[in-house]
Amino acid sequence: MERIGVAILGATGIVGQRFVARLAEHPLFEIKYLSASGRSAGLKYGEACTWRAPGRPYGGLADRIVEETSPERAWAPVVFSALDAQAASELEPLYAASGALVFSNASSYRMHEDVPLLVPEANSDHLALLEEQRRRRRWRGGIACNPNCTTAILTTALAPLHRTFGIEAALVTSMQAVSGAGYPGVSALDISGNLIPFIRGEEEKLETETAKILGTLQGGRVEPAGFPVSATCTRVPVRDGHSVSASVRLAGNPSIEEVVGCLKAYRSPLADLGLSSAPEYPVTVREEADRPQPLLDADAGDGMSVSVGRFRSCGILGLKFLALGHNLERGAAGAAVLNAELWVSAGVPA
Amino acid sequence: MERIGVAILGATGIVGQRFVARLAEHPLFEIKYLSASGRSAGLKYGEACTWRAPGRPYGGLADRIVEETSPERAWAPVVFSALDAQAASELEPLYAASGALVFSNASSYRMHEDVPLLVPEANSDHLALLEEQRRRRRWRGGIACNPNCTTAILTTALAPLHRTFGIEAALVTSMQAVSGAGYPGVSALDISGNLIPFIRGEEEKLETETAKILGTLQGGRVEPAGFPVSATCTRVPVRDGHSVSASVRLAGNPSIEEVVGCLKAYRSPLADLGLSSAPEYPVTVREEADRPQPLLDADAGDGMSVSVGRFRSCGILGLKFLALGHNLERGAAGAAVLNAELWVSAGVPA
Amino acid sequence: MERIGVAILGATGIVGQRFVARLAEHPLFEIKYLSASGRSAGLKYGEACTWRAPGRPYGGLADRIVEETSPERAWAPVVFSALDAQAASELEPLYAASGALVFSNASSYRMHEDVPLLVPEANSDHLALLEEQRRRRRWRGGIACNPNCTTAILTTALAPLHRTFGIEAALVTSMQAVSGAGYPGVSALDISGNLIPFIRGEEEKLETETAKILGTLQGGRVEPAGFPVSATCTRVPVRDGHSVSASVRLAGNPSIEEVVGCLKAYRSPLADLGLSSAPEYPVTVREEADRPQPLLDADAGDGMSVSVGRFRSCGILGLKFLALGHNLERGAAGAAVLNAELWVSAGVPA
Amino acid sequence: MERIGVAILGATGIVGQRFVARLAEHPLFEIKYLSASGRSAGLKYGEACTWRAPGRPYGGLADRIVEETSPERAWAPVVFSALDAQAASELEPLYAASGALVFSNASSYRMHEDVPLLVPEANSDHLALLEEQRRRRRWRGGIACNPNCTTAILTTALAPLHRTFGIEAALVTSMQAVSGAGYPGVSALDISGNLIPFIRGEEEKLETETAKILGTLQGGRVEPAGFPVSATCTRVPVRDGHSVSASVRLAGNPSIEEVVGCLKAYRSPLADLGLSSAPEYPVTVREEADRPQPLLDADAGDGMSVSVGRFRSCGILGLKFLALGHNLERGAAGAAVLNAELWVSAGVPA
Repeated sequence: MERIGVAILGATGIVGQRFVARLAEHPLFEIKYLSASGRSAGLKYGEACTWRAPGRPYGGLADRIVEETSPERAWAPVVFSALDAQAASELEPLYAASGALVFSNASSYRMHEDVPLLVPEANSDHLALLEEQRRRRRWRGGIACNPNCTTAILTTALAPLHRTFGIEAALVTSMQAVSGAGYPGVSALDISGNLIPFIRGEEEKLETETAKILGTLQGGRVEPAGFPVSATCTRVPVRDGHSVSASVRLAGNPSIEEVVGCLKAYRSPLADLGLSSAPEYPVTVREEADRPQPLLDADAGDGMSVSVGRFRSCGILGLKFLALGHNLERGAAGAAVLNAELWVSAGVPA
Repeated sequence: MERIGVAILGATGIVGQRFVARLAEHPLFEIKYLSASGRSAGLKYGEACTWRAPGRPYGGLADRIVEETSPERAWAPVVFSALDAQAASELEPLYAASGALVFSNASSYRMHEDVPLLVPEANSDHLALLEEQRRRRRWRGGIACNPNCTTAILTTALAPLHRTFGIEAALVTSMQAVSGAGYPGVSALDISGNLIPFIRGEEEKLETETAKILGTLQGGRVEPAGFPVSATCTRVPVRDGHSVSASVRLAGNPSIEEVVGCLKAYRSPLADLGLSSAPEYPVTVREEADRPQPLLDADAGDGMSVSVGRFRSCGILGLKFLALGHNLERGAAGAAVLNAELWVSAGVPA
Repeated sequence: MERIGVAILGATGIVGQRFVARLAEHPLFEIKYLSASGRSAGLKYGEACTWRAPGRPYGGLADRIVEETSPERAWAPVVFSALDAQAASELEPLYAASGALVFSNASSYRMHEDVPLLVPEANSDHLALLEEQRRRRRWRGGIACNPNCTTAILTTALAPLHRTFGIEAALVTSMQAVSGAGYPGVSALDISGNLIPFIRGEEEKLETETAKILGTLQGGRVEPAGFPVSATCTRVPVRDGHSVSASVRLAGNPSIEEVVGCLKAYRSPLADLGLSSAPEYPVTVREEADRPQPLLDADAGDGMSVSVGRFRSCGILGLKFLALGHNLERGAAGAAVLNAELWVSAGVPA
Repeated sequence: MERIGVAILGATGIVGQRFVARLAEHPLFEIKYLSASGRSAGLKYGEACTWRAPGRPYGGLADRIVEETSPERAWAPVVFSALDAQAASELEPLYAASGALVFSNASSYRMHEDVPLLVPEANSDHLALLEEQRRRRRWRGGIACNPNCTTAILTTALAPLHRTFGIEAALVTSMQAVSGAGYPGVSALDISGNLIPFIRGEEEKLETETAKILGTLQGGRVEPAGFPVSATCTRVPVRDGHSVSASVRLAGNPSIEEVVGCLKAYRSPLADLGLSSAPEYPVTVREEADRPQPLLDADAGDGMSVSVGRFRSCGILGLKFLALGHNLERGAAGAAVLNAELWVSAGVPA
């Protein structure tokens, strides 16, 4: 089978490199273009950035010339966008209008009501919003988003609990890794041996995106989940892996055993679709007293499985636990690639 | 005025050194003895440990011989205990029986009903439990405890809110510094670039000690505060300073402005007693979007002021904010010294 | 072909786990026994330690029962020893006497004159010392050592320079990773944001072992290389990967171009033996101004290639450069496994 | 006595803040102006930057308005410059021409032959170059420089050895703190748990500035010291404090005891001048096996004393040892202030 050509927008950044690493030998996709901002355009990929992703350096594409980000210079039927929000606002619609399907990691269009915001294990049916989107915007292609990194990790863990029991409230504190801020991102003088209890816009994203993701598709639009989410987001001196301390009220107040049993039994609804980036068990339950830990668990399931542990009773909301996932994989590049795999699997015409 | 002689038990450890630093030139107290376990006894203090506290190395006592911890070898009318829980269980009663007043940082006796567990700004009246303690235990001296480090920091911030509004629930996630685990404590391989979401016994301490501290003295015993506390405690790669992400339900649901106003106006009830270790304003309100931070704020008020910030509405409990304090000062050595200063000020007979 | 059974002594430690990871699916060797000290013996491997190595957790042997370290409880014809020096002094001879060939990472026997101290690319002929060793000690098996971690990395880089030009002096400062001290090893309070300019015994090892490794086998014994080595060893807050700042005087004072050309052209003398752990190019020349770096380069060649860079003139000794290698692979477990592969390849009878 | 008014150029940066902290309550100097680049000009100092220096936040000047850096907007007879090299090139001559004496931390003019490059304990006589400078450049004021941070630390330790024995060669590897790169400076993703073996221009500065500082004033110009210096400079994940591993050849090859004795006996030649920033003993000899360490020793002598230790024989150059100093104090702000104190003491007319 011929692989589908893809362009990676913003390929030199932290998330862009993860796209390259994940797509370099992908069974469905073939990298046609690597794009970046004007400063890097024209350079070889190996000269344009320092490789910080796992696997073969530069995904084997060190000699590929980086193109400027525009449909004229770097077009493919499937586009993965690691652009920042401002660039994404301008450029992603140009790609969508030109017929490309954009799988975007940017925040720009996530909350637009005709844009699917996907955690495929939770809401693969939301992909149907693409039709409405094309109609409204007269686009031949489209935009499908993955959530904010912390939201992606949290909702992957919450989805089976919401489906099984029904969530009534979720109060979380995140402890987020430095790579989530991109490169150069956070100054060593700010974060080494320190903690910054603020990440601009993050708490709002966590609160609003969670509701959309766990919402239900009704009459061509998403009815947000009705439970309140309250988030505090902090930055900690960890390289990769966002941790979330979560307290949750579940309908019917199930026992800890019932909750853990539900998560252990949770096999991915995508498990039989043969998607490369979909772990069979999207949630890994750790039994140890001191897990999950970023250094030990962020790479679980090739970075796509969310590790959870320390399930205990909460005297206020009923249940508390820890969740952890890889912010660059389940929280960014891997999420977008999984969205694209889902879309191919669903047979949605490009 | 002659200064009161003191012995510091466990003087070579992280907290013991902070006792030495704080007491080396104290107006009320004079260090008579430095004690440690048998391995260090007989050595000069400067040989027995590496100095890691601020100020003059070894508090100027590098040549002082370290004594073994026992009332026979190292006695003074006032004793500061930085012993671990097991040693404290055995040794602190011996000191108390022999007539010494022990200001203990150990967890051993904190929850005994006749032992005052003090955050002086919050519950200086609990000191009265000492009388009951002496009667029951037939001790000529006694034991007064300061709380667990995180509890001390949290309750310092909660006390004025509880007094003014009444707390109905408190749900917290702590991010605790490495120095809280003592020396050698945590392995660099475990914590560098990582986060450990578990500290043995810590969550229980936070939940039970908070209730006792904010409880009321009635008929010679403490009636615990009635509101539920739910805690998640984590270790982060920070040297000094415990952070707490707190969500709180207050009676009457006051506005953010009322809450912040209450804390800004909060002058220490001890402010006029002239206690060296009592900051006039025990709670420092930070207005910046990204404070409090351990590196920038742990030393506020000589380590005795708790910095708070990021007051926001919580869609579930009403209020959320961050609190941060120095775990070795407000959370340990400074707390015990303040307790002793309060006791002298109160004129309680030794 | 049937694989040779191996026992891993000290399998729960940092180096032991690397042995397990490297041998779990090795074409020549099959893990028969995992041993540890009495405290861990009898436990399942997955319970006896926290897995910190790459690859499949516990090498897939989480359920294997850990045996006590003794030839009676855990014997195989090939033994990999990650024991500490004291245990190795006692136990390795028991294994050697019982007929096992011990590939040891311990320092105990490295400098014994009848024990080969191997960096196979540099001195594979030293393996012949085994015959003398068996004769003298009346052992049916034997002991072959890999060097101290820093020495292994340095000599891998120096070997082609010594062979091609002749080294006349080497003055080095190492900056060594925390994992080199084992687990729990270094306290986070000592090393986080700090540097410790001392590692006990390390400088002596670097100075004496280098001379033995680069020495020549003459009449059944090794004549040490005659040039002086001067070492300063420091510990830095890096997880894996030892860096060495090296200044070297070469005979004939070759140009920087000649030196770099020599290293770039350096193909492993083992390259055609088909050894799994032998990289074709044991030395990787980095051209970037700011490489090699531990985080980016320690894993080169599966941890077995030493990265070098920043070749410049030194106004005092003629040449200076940086070298970096993985202390747990080229410097420990990988080195011992390569030694064993070499031994099998050489057809030395067990 | 009336204090001399000073302006601090680049007051919002890491070094600028150290100037403010050191001058806020200085007996000779009084801060008249704080300047910064256009972006900060017009803001209150407390709004223009986050305070990262020790002591009272913002030196008590949080409400002072920051001026744009120019003699028209922020002039005083004494100027401390924490400008970057490019800004210093343009602005410092304007100040000097206008009659101000500029004590500069910038590299721009250090190697100009009529500019004194001072480590006052080593070469206070070089201050006389100012006369030549004024004559040549027709300046009413002038520029006096302190060295590069690492050079300042190294030469403070080398000066007494050079004077007593005569240095014949010095080969050094530095391990430099992150604060040396300013703010935001180094990305946490680059340096956390890593080491960067390159700092642009640093090795050249160390090699050339050392020769000038330890050179001799002859006939109105400095004859550089004749011995070769070879430097390798690296960045390590340490906040403050540059370490130097030094190997030195001394004339006459004195014993370790003679060298250590020389340094222990070394009382500052400035000791009787009453300069606030001049420690009586500029070099502190540490006897412990594992010192000096940045975390424990950088603040020695209020950051102005260089700690040395681990004196050993070097088989190649004769002597090796470690030196450590505070890069922001002895290596930057403190050095410039000491230069100014020396100048006042010397009675040089402004």
